[in-house]
Amino acid sequence: MDIGGTHMRAAVFHENENQPSEIKRIRTYVDGKTSIDRLINLIEDVTPKGEMIQAIGIAVPGPMDPQKGIILAAPNLKEWSGIPLQATIEAHFGVRTRLGNDANMAAVGEWRYGAGQGHHHVLYLTISTGVGGGVICHDQLLLGEQGIGAELGHVTILPDGPICNCGQRGHIEAISSGTGIANYVAEQLEAGRKSSLTGKPDAKAISMAAKQGDVLAIEAFNRAGYYLGLGIANYLMIFNPSIVILGGGVSETGDLIMNPILKTVEESVLSKHFLQNLTITRAALGDNAGLYGALALARDAVTFA
Amino acid sequence: MDIGGTHMRAAVFHENENQPSEIKRIRTYVDGKTSIDRLINLIEDVTPKGEMIQAIGIAVPGPMDPQKGIILAAPNLKEWSGIPLQATIEAHFGVRTRLGNDANMAAVGEWRYGAGQGHHHVLYLTISTGVGGGVICHDQLLLGEQGIGAELGHVTILPDGPICNCGQRGHIEAISSGTGIANYVAEQLEAGRKSSLTGKPDAKAISMAAKQGDVLAIEAFNRAGYYLGLGIANYLMIFNPSIVILGGGVSETGDLIMNPILKTVEESVLSKHFLQNLTITRAALGDNAGLYGALALARDAVTFA
Repeated sequence: MDIGGTHMRAAVFHENENQPSEIKRIRTYVDGKTSIDRLINLIEDVTPKGEMIQAIGIAVPGPMDPQKGIILAAPNLKEWSGIPLQATIEAHFGVRTRLGNDANMAAVGEWRYGAGQGHHHVLYLTISTGVGGGVICHDQLLLGEQGIGAELGHVTILPDGPICNCGQRGHIEAISSGTGIANYVAEQLEAGRKSSLTGKPDAKAISMAAKQGDVLAIEAFNRAGYYLGLGIANYLMIFNPSIVILGGGVSETGDLIMNPILKTVEESVLSKHFLQNLTITRAALGDNAGLYGALALARDAVTFA
Repeated sequence: MDIGGTHMRAAVFHENENQPSEIKRIRTYVDGKTSIDRLINLIEDVTPKGEMIQAIGIAVPGPMDPQKGIILAAPNLKEWSGIPLQATIEAHFGVRTRLGNDANMAAVGEWRYGAGQGHHHVLYLTISTGVGGGVICHDQLLLGEQGIGAELGHVTILPDGPICNCGQRGHIEAISSGTGIANYVAEQLEAGRKSSLTGKPDAKAISMAAKQGDVLAIEAFNRAGYYLGLGIANYLMIFNPSIVILGGGVSETGDLIMNPILKTVEESVLSKHFLQNLTITRAALGDNAGLYGALALARDAVTFA
């Protein structure tokens, strides 16, 4: 399962098969029914008749307690905060259920089934409306004491920088996310900068303007890529991974964001050792990365039971 | 063994004893003899007569390859660069020998025998002439693919900040180390700032002036503590540790540096969850942390042989 702010998706995987036999997507909210009831219905709905569920893995948005299986505070899923989701699903279906933060699950999905296969040290970043991520260290997902670590977008990279969605200042997310790019352009337009763009364009409109040569739009992506590159260089110093995987809509703009990222990373490492045998690549699983991470979680729940 | 730029030290620990039966310190360089010969002599010298060495652990300065046991590039130990130290010592003594980066070894020492005992997720930082550190994640030392990770002082925290010892700009080490503090004061004095300090005072002189109320000296520590606090808050987001251990000469100035650190950490976390059950404390083993880390390395070499 992959639960998002607007949709939730279920995928069925048979033992030893890495292609889903079914994927189904429904809206997270519909008047009159709680989301958890809808989640249970969705699971029942996709379960093949006459077959048994072995385990359920669920990717959930926002910080959660993976030990207790409780969503702590999801800005887009207020109704779910504090609910013992894992216990509820386990009790209903009578099978092992595991929860993971969606960015962490996407990291695990890419590691186990996507671009990071065979690597032992993986840095995964997703750059879309926000910046999230996950880290595999020594073949293990980095969770931390309470399981709320790897908040890789919410680290300060520019102390006097713009305010982040979280309220803090100068986080990578505040500058290099789609929101950060859009905010920068809106601010520059308001200050009277010339551009083919007007009003409050979103990151997609800005990327299109950049591809047509708009100087402000190109500058906005260079700026986002520069600070993201500084952040990635920091993570290379910290984790010394063998692969960096970039997912999310902003990374899909291609060279526009990748060129300034790669230039900055190369210029900012402590020594060339950190670039040796290092792969920096785009994510392979697209929107399904979280579902694949949930699959890995479910399979591990069976294997290590 | 703990090898430093000016001295190397050897400590002998008997099985099941955590107090050394002997510690001996000699200078790293003396004309006419290579340092490795001196190291071998030192080990022979401290080995109790009639007793057998089970394993040797060595903390070495600078980046190294822990898999191959080779020092990669130690600015203060040029003579040792590229030498297969582990193989040389193993061949000479015929016992298992393990090498670790000195900051990593200090982290392991504090975790296993010092302030971090019983914790599973430890962030250790040492603030002296430089800023180094080590991380325990899920009961394992974070090394990374080539074993050169956890360069916690060499991450950018202020992109347009001062030049670091490593040549990059705005690293935590460039601002918050003793060198960073001294450089800031020297720069301010040169710019004509009033102070009881003159010339190019070192961090110790600046801390003494601060304790006597010198405004510039206090400001220098506040600035160092603020950026170090931002860095530590970042590491809380990344690692979600249960304890932060601060070692090194600068951290021994006490409240002068600890107050701005703690204030900044508290103000900069993404959510209060990251401060729950979190201990921020001073290191317990002082200069011996590296020796204790080397002890842990040697004992693990026996246990997991």
